[in-house]
Amino acid sequence: MRILVTNDDGIHAEGLYRLAKAMARLGEVTVVAPLVEHSAVGHALTLTDPLRVEKVFHDGALFGRAVNGTPADCVKLAVRMLMEAPPDLVVSGINPGANTGHNVIYSGTVSAATEGAILAIPAFAISRGWSMEPDFGPAAEIAVEVAERLLAHRLPDGVLLNVNVPPLPRAAIHGYRITEQGQGRFVERFDARVDPRGKEYFWQTGETLIPDHGETIDDTALEEGYVSITPIHYDLTARPFMAELAEWGW
Amino acid sequence: MRILVTNDDGIHAEGLYRLAKAMARLGEVTVVAPLVEHSAVGHALTLTDPLRVEKVFHDGALFGRAVNGTPADCVKLAVRMLMEAPPDLVVSGINPGANTGHNVIYSGTVSAATEGAILAIPAFAISRGWSMEPDFGPAAEIAVEVAERLLAHRLPDGVLLNVNVPPLPRAAIHGYRITEQGQGRFVERFDARVDPRGKEYFWQTGETLIPDHGETIDDTALEEGYVSITPIHYDLTARPFMAELAEWGW
Repeated sequence: MRILVTNDDGIHAEGLYRLAKAMARLGEVTVVAPLVEHSAVGHALTLTDPLRVEKVFHDGALFGRAVNGTPADCVKLAVRMLMEAPPDLVVSGINPGANTGHNVIYSGTVSAATEGAILAIPAFAISRGWSMEPDFGPAAEIAVEVAERLLAHRLPDGVLLNVNVPPLPRAAIHGYRITEQGQGRFVERFDARVDPRGKEYFWQTGETLIPDHGETIDDTALEEGYVSITPIHYDLTARPFMAELAEWGW
Repeated sequence: MRILVTNDDGIHAEGLYRLAKAMARLGEVTVVAPLVEHSAVGHALTLTDPLRVEKVFHDGALFGRAVNGTPADCVKLAVRMLMEAPPDLVVSGINPGANTGHNVIYSGTVSAATEGAILAIPAFAISRGWSMEPDFGPAAEIAVEVAERLLAHRLPDGVLLNVNVPPLPRAAIHGYRITEQGQGRFVERFDARVDPRGKEYFWQTGETLIPDHGETIDDTALEEGYVSITPIHYDLTARPFMAELAEWGW
């Protein structure tokens, strides 16, 4: 069993380390992650610049390899060039902060797992609800449980799992819920500021808005203390609207 | 009628200029685009750095504003800070190179239009099949035709249009086809090279693979000389698989 572990927060992130340690209980782990943080990069690729790879050691032993690219670059490069054989599983995380609702489309954590699905490798992304000093222990245990189920079953082509864990101790987590991507989103504002040279600049900020609270919504699962498991794919076609659109007099 | 025009190739791209000129036939155009090229950035946002805005003049008249951010940043900043009132339409393009199949998820052109849909503004992305010296004239005309239909009808919440135009003269384009996102994709390889200092680096390259040729597929429409109109949304939930996934013994 070969497991590729990556993230979007960079090779030095604690969540990545906890995930790699937990996955080592299931098989041989290869860590390939961005050299620096790539949060909110969405599904970006590096096409115009060369990619470089740097080995990262912990206490004299190879921990993983850092790439000066995006999470999607890391998975492509790992599978095509760095691993001797393709992995049996791609796991991305553990992200500090949920990737639910609209955040899913901006998420580098999710995009790395999506790249696994594109390469026809079982894959999941795992994130933990935000708190200032996160304990990644419960999410790491849950990652093992998800991986075991994923390896015992079969995902349809082009489907991956987006896993979100509530920021609670393991004993306070009630179980799993299969969910849909909800409408939770960050409603951004921009602070207009002036720099020391007198020039204007803008800083993005805002508030989280969660408008839907149905039991099957990803954010609701977290609020109610459940692990949210959303099956996602990368076919963006809005099929229910195709017939009506065809009547627009083209 | 207020129209926001943006792209992912940057404020100096010819496709943006042609699109802005064409859209001016329908209303008041505001151009807000990245300062530099942001192709393949997917749905990225700039959270950790300040955004700066620079006015760009053509022959002494204001053409638009350049932002040191991504296409998604441009739309958010334009709507929230730079325009006096929100636009009636967001148009992103004209991208040189189709955004069909898997490319849709990597596309900065599409992500800018998606941001419009997230902000509840009618939106479309427009791209033109690749050629070395593209004539954007036919795609600019088609952008006007699409905009007219979009303004005369109503898109469902969270849906936008992804328009792709074949690289042909206007007279050789047969008409419009409502399509689905296909499986067309770039199958990447990495060239392993050595830099002048003897250090290894990797350059991403590859070939396009189009495995499906059904009449309703986006790439098929282009191949057969039709404008491809795909309704897309940003709900990634793989709903047909939810029931089966629930049986995995959670």
